[in-house]
Amino acid sequence: MNGYSIRVGVLGAGGYSGRELVAILARHARVGIVFATSESDAGRPLRSICASAPELSLVRAAEAPLGECDAIFCCLPHGESMRWAGRARNAGAKVIDLSSDLRVVRADLPEWTRTAVYGLPELHRERIRGAELIANPGCYPTAAILALAPLVRRELIAGPVVINAASGVTGAGRSPKRELLFAEVAEDYRAYGTGNTHRHLAEMKDQVSGLAPGEAPELVFVPHLLPVHRGILETIHVPLRSELNGEAIDLWAEDYAGEPFIDLFREGTPSLRDVVRTNRVAIAVARVDGVRSPMLQVIAAEDNLVKGAAGQAVQNLNLMFGVPETESLA
Amino acid sequence: MNGYSIRVGVLGAGGYSGRELVAILARHARVGIVFATSESDAGRPLRSICASAPELSLVRAAEAPLGECDAIFCCLPHGESMRWAGRARNAGAKVIDLSSDLRVVRADLPEWTRTAVYGLPELHRERIRGAELIANPGCYPTAAILALAPLVRRELIAGPVVINAASGVTGAGRSPKRELLFAEVAEDYRAYGTGNTHRHLAEMKDQVSGLAPGEAPELVFVPHLLPVHRGILETIHVPLRSELNGEAIDLWAEDYAGEPFIDLFREGTPSLRDVVRTNRVAIAVARVDGVRSPMLQVIAAEDNLVKGAAGQAVQNLNLMFGVPETESLA
Amino acid sequence: MNGYSIRVGVLGAGGYSGRELVAILARHARVGIVFATSESDAGRPLRSICASAPELSLVRAAEAPLGECDAIFCCLPHGESMRWAGRARNAGAKVIDLSSDLRVVRADLPEWTRTAVYGLPELHRERIRGAELIANPGCYPTAAILALAPLVRRELIAGPVVINAASGVTGAGRSPKRELLFAEVAEDYRAYGTGNTHRHLAEMKDQVSGLAPGEAPELVFVPHLLPVHRGILETIHVPLRSELNGEAIDLWAEDYAGEPFIDLFREGTPSLRDVVRTNRVAIAVARVDGVRSPMLQVIAAEDNLVKGAAGQAVQNLNLMFGVPETESLA
Amino acid sequence: MNGYSIRVGVLGAGGYSGRELVAILARHARVGIVFATSESDAGRPLRSICASAPELSLVRAAEAPLGECDAIFCCLPHGESMRWAGRARNAGAKVIDLSSDLRVVRADLPEWTRTAVYGLPELHRERIRGAELIANPGCYPTAAILALAPLVRRELIAGPVVINAASGVTGAGRSPKRELLFAEVAEDYRAYGTGNTHRHLAEMKDQVSGLAPGEAPELVFVPHLLPVHRGILETIHVPLRSELNGEAIDLWAEDYAGEPFIDLFREGTPSLRDVVRTNRVAIAVARVDGVRSPMLQVIAAEDNLVKGAAGQAVQNLNLMFGVPETESLA
Repeated sequence: MNGYSIRVGVLGAGGYSGRELVAILARHARVGIVFATSESDAGRPLRSICASAPELSLVRAAEAPLGECDAIFCCLPHGESMRWAGRARNAGAKVIDLSSDLRVVRADLPEWTRTAVYGLPELHRERIRGAELIANPGCYPTAAILALAPLVRRELIAGPVVINAASGVTGAGRSPKRELLFAEVAEDYRAYGTGNTHRHLAEMKDQVSGLAPGEAPELVFVPHLLPVHRGILETIHVPLRSELNGEAIDLWAEDYAGEPFIDLFREGTPSLRDVVRTNRVAIAVARVDGVRSPMLQVIAAEDNLVKGAAGQAVQNLNLMFGVPETESLA
Repeated sequence: MNGYSIRVGVLGAGGYSGRELVAILARHARVGIVFATSESDAGRPLRSICASAPELSLVRAAEAPLGECDAIFCCLPHGESMRWAGRARNAGAKVIDLSSDLRVVRADLPEWTRTAVYGLPELHRERIRGAELIANPGCYPTAAILALAPLVRRELIAGPVVINAASGVTGAGRSPKRELLFAEVAEDYRAYGTGNTHRHLAEMKDQVSGLAPGEAPELVFVPHLLPVHRGILETIHVPLRSELNGEAIDLWAEDYAGEPFIDLFREGTPSLRDVVRTNRVAIAVARVDGVRSPMLQVIAAEDNLVKGAAGQAVQNLNLMFGVPETESLA
Repeated sequence: MNGYSIRVGVLGAGGYSGRELVAILARHARVGIVFATSESDAGRPLRSICASAPELSLVRAAEAPLGECDAIFCCLPHGESMRWAGRARNAGAKVIDLSSDLRVVRADLPEWTRTAVYGLPELHRERIRGAELIANPGCYPTAAILALAPLVRRELIAGPVVINAASGVTGAGRSPKRELLFAEVAEDYRAYGTGNTHRHLAEMKDQVSGLAPGEAPELVFVPHLLPVHRGILETIHVPLRSELNGEAIDLWAEDYAGEPFIDLFREGTPSLRDVVRTNRVAIAVARVDGVRSPMLQVIAAEDNLVKGAAGQAVQNLNLMFGVPETESLA
Repeated sequence: MNGYSIRVGVLGAGGYSGRELVAILARHARVGIVFATSESDAGRPLRSICASAPELSLVRAAEAPLGECDAIFCCLPHGESMRWAGRARNAGAKVIDLSSDLRVVRADLPEWTRTAVYGLPELHRERIRGAELIANPGCYPTAAILALAPLVRRELIAGPVVINAASGVTGAGRSPKRELLFAEVAEDYRAYGTGNTHRHLAEMKDQVSGLAPGEAPELVFVPHLLPVHRGILETIHVPLRSELNGEAIDLWAEDYAGEPFIDLFREGTPSLRDVVRTNRVAIAVARVDGVRSPMLQVIAAEDNLVKGAAGQAVQNLNLMFGVPETESLA
């Protein structure tokens, strides 16, 4: 391959994930950006989004030259994204869809959506290499699934897993809403999607089911909004069938040996600072003291815009096109 | 009683709790501040701490006229506080100790500490009225105990309760430490006291035991540090022995009827903003969907410096001296 | 006067100034709130805005019983506010208008607007006492005018005064705008209204002209947006006609002797923390070293929502109705 | 040159500038890090500072193999830094000193310090290429000097220039101090170094004198502390000798044509967000309206840790060793 071998397009470059994606692609040695779309900013330079981007003007999606791309990223709103993913596939491009549209297989979706591979490389690397359509994982599920996989595979979980998660505001999008104003968010903190009703839950359950040899463990998930830009931290309590032998973290070390983006903390616990602006998921594990039945506390952190969205999307691109998996990712 | 009937002293006015306490006392219609101490700022005006305070100079604890006070607040570091509480008692003053020293009865403590009443008015109002020594509750325990009491009393809890808590930085004190610098805390979020080892746990367990008719439920507690000044939010998952009949929140409504500082949310969930700068604990309850065994999600919020420290201390003072319980508290 | 002697209404209670005003009025010993309006939240309890407010429902402005009030506060958008101020005057109420509509006398405004008194008590206390219509000063002008008045009156200023100001985001209102999102404002800082074009400038010039015995000094004003909720700090450089004798701050001490809400700093300089949640303006003055022509540096701080809006409005109310000027203000 | 051609050492890697420097060097294609020192963290892995750094342990300065390096960066406290710069020079390394020790030529300094070149590439590029000792500019002076140079060179300035500056907290260092705690800084904003006494002023004056064909203009400088991590914004008011012809910004465009790290804003004004995590200085210029004598408003922004410290240091390294000037800098 020479320098500009993968021609890519970005549908929906104006949101926080789209902007992060453009920034990662702009420094990618094997990628050329063919187009980037924004309905509200069409006509303005792409550099207004990312100073190091090539000299292009943003266009409307309807004007995007889908057929000139090897790969197209869809960062459009949930619902709309799938429609454009279909058009991009028809135009001959491989597609990486960052919306939630294709993450869970649903009987009511068109036939072509069945080919979508869930783009979590640590679990599905080989299938991703051969995929033409990727459902890029959600931010909360990425951390939760990677945190739980070693326990799920080994059928070690005895009861409902409580996933207490907190995310920076970029996870809530860039549309102007009163509840996202600085004056409302700063100095505040709150739960949302209470009662175990968040839309990311189906995606987590679906993936956990796929990993479980037998019955999948029950999941309880409650997200919170943090007064920070970016980063997700999940504090997870897992009732175990029996005490683990040895260091609990060794299970994760075994499963994630050689993984470039999994950081295991053998001492201390990860904080947002450890992962923000990287494609890494940091994981720590601790036995819960003072309870009669064995329980583990797993803490996982990631950047919601990178490993939770744009970084993972480029990790998938790298796998799909035979580029080193870590190219342009830290 | 006339205007300045309760003469009070504050040992340790320079920390965040002490400063908040001085501010509340300064606007209290029935209180006169006799002295306030600060080892590092002795000699400086009390108004450097609180503009609306009376014209006094801060003194060293050793110079404080303990014997001139009806009541003395100890806001000294854990360990040191008990020593001064003893001196204040010997000088004839009633004492409200904001440290953790007296909150849990311990066989190795001196005889006189046994008279300490745990100053949580919603549970122990009558004993507080007659007390001469108050162990003012910790910030995390206040919210957790009030959130759980209705379930504990009715023996509804089936298994380990997971208390996921997050607090603003004023809970960590005012001593200069690198990990509390703005440049370290802002844009970050992390768990601490992992593995169920936090020192507040014993206090929670002790109070929950006192409420439980039979065996007390197990508690798992994990605190996190939020990039905000003040406020605590606890998200608590409680496995139940059986499904509740009716609205779950009705149990709290029954137990806390008439309580001036308990806010029950029948819709929405409390955020820090709802309680910061007030003496209130806000509580919401939701059934957890999609799990086979019944589980409740209880969310409780308070201001760690007010209901979690100085405000509750004044609430106790009001009870001990027959002043309206809400005086100078919002 | 007995307890509830001044019946007041609030037009536009949903914005940040309106909410602050409701909170101040709710704790005011001589005020009863008759109505409060919000077009978007009509029907919801006033307590959703301020927990300590009386039990009222918010109403639309069109439904407000203007005629039942002794005084009405207009916190409506600039332009619309004057229209409602007129209606409130016609209904017989005294009016305090927090918009900019009436602050500068303009030939194209209706006759009745000429009676408006500029509600800066430190300059116009006697006229305020007798006023029936108050133009409540803007947040930036309040600090700037009070900072400069002692120099203007004495004709000490030699050339253009450079007012470098920074404000928290509540000054920009509560309407959802992208540039006010947490994800845009946090970790950022920027100037706006560059080139000396900000709309508050006319108001400053008008008041400074009124104070100047001869020709008024030129003003250069540049505001900045701070990532904080509230507070304004203005750093002002003033070229002087000649070196001052004695301590510069003595001029301010002379002019503001006995003023309850002016805090002069003889050492140190004020920061937002010194004034936030108070009705105070804090002022420090320093000679500028190392320049050939004499120059003063004046630093003034206030809370934009209190002394810069709602607090000053209540200070004016107190004056107009013969209540102690500091009632319900800290 | 092959991959690892420049062997560098970092004295003082534990502060904010040092950490930023390690991160930039770690991704530099032509640099190998030989050592990095930290007195407090000696023995810990360099990766505890920067995850992408090579596998080295931090050492004490006394153990650093100075003689094995082509270039050594001194990020030590002011005062101490010069001493180590001397040792590094004696060991044969080229030195880039990030402290203020060598920035202003002083008669009382040792002879060898006279060879120091002020490392502002946009002004002194050729001398930097040939230098063996660099005094890396201060954060505030970098922005101020670059903002003013086009006016100074042309002798357009008529009177005192007022430089109103604001910086994020990382500019104040990483030592634990109470006034830098999150609970003190967040929601606050204040001036420091009032009265034109800041230690950076001499550096600014020295450089401005060097640029001025005749008498140098007077400078008035007042810094403020912002509740953000990083970034400096300077709002500068400059009285002019006469109105400029044409677009004012054209002067900057002429002087900085081809400069890789100067961004001129022909519309809008720069905010911190435009420059943070880059090595750029963004500049906008506006005529001041409504004043009789001509005045310009110049706004300049940079990242205090990058262009104001570590990034500029690497830009200097690149020049000194014939590497492309923008290598590893964004």
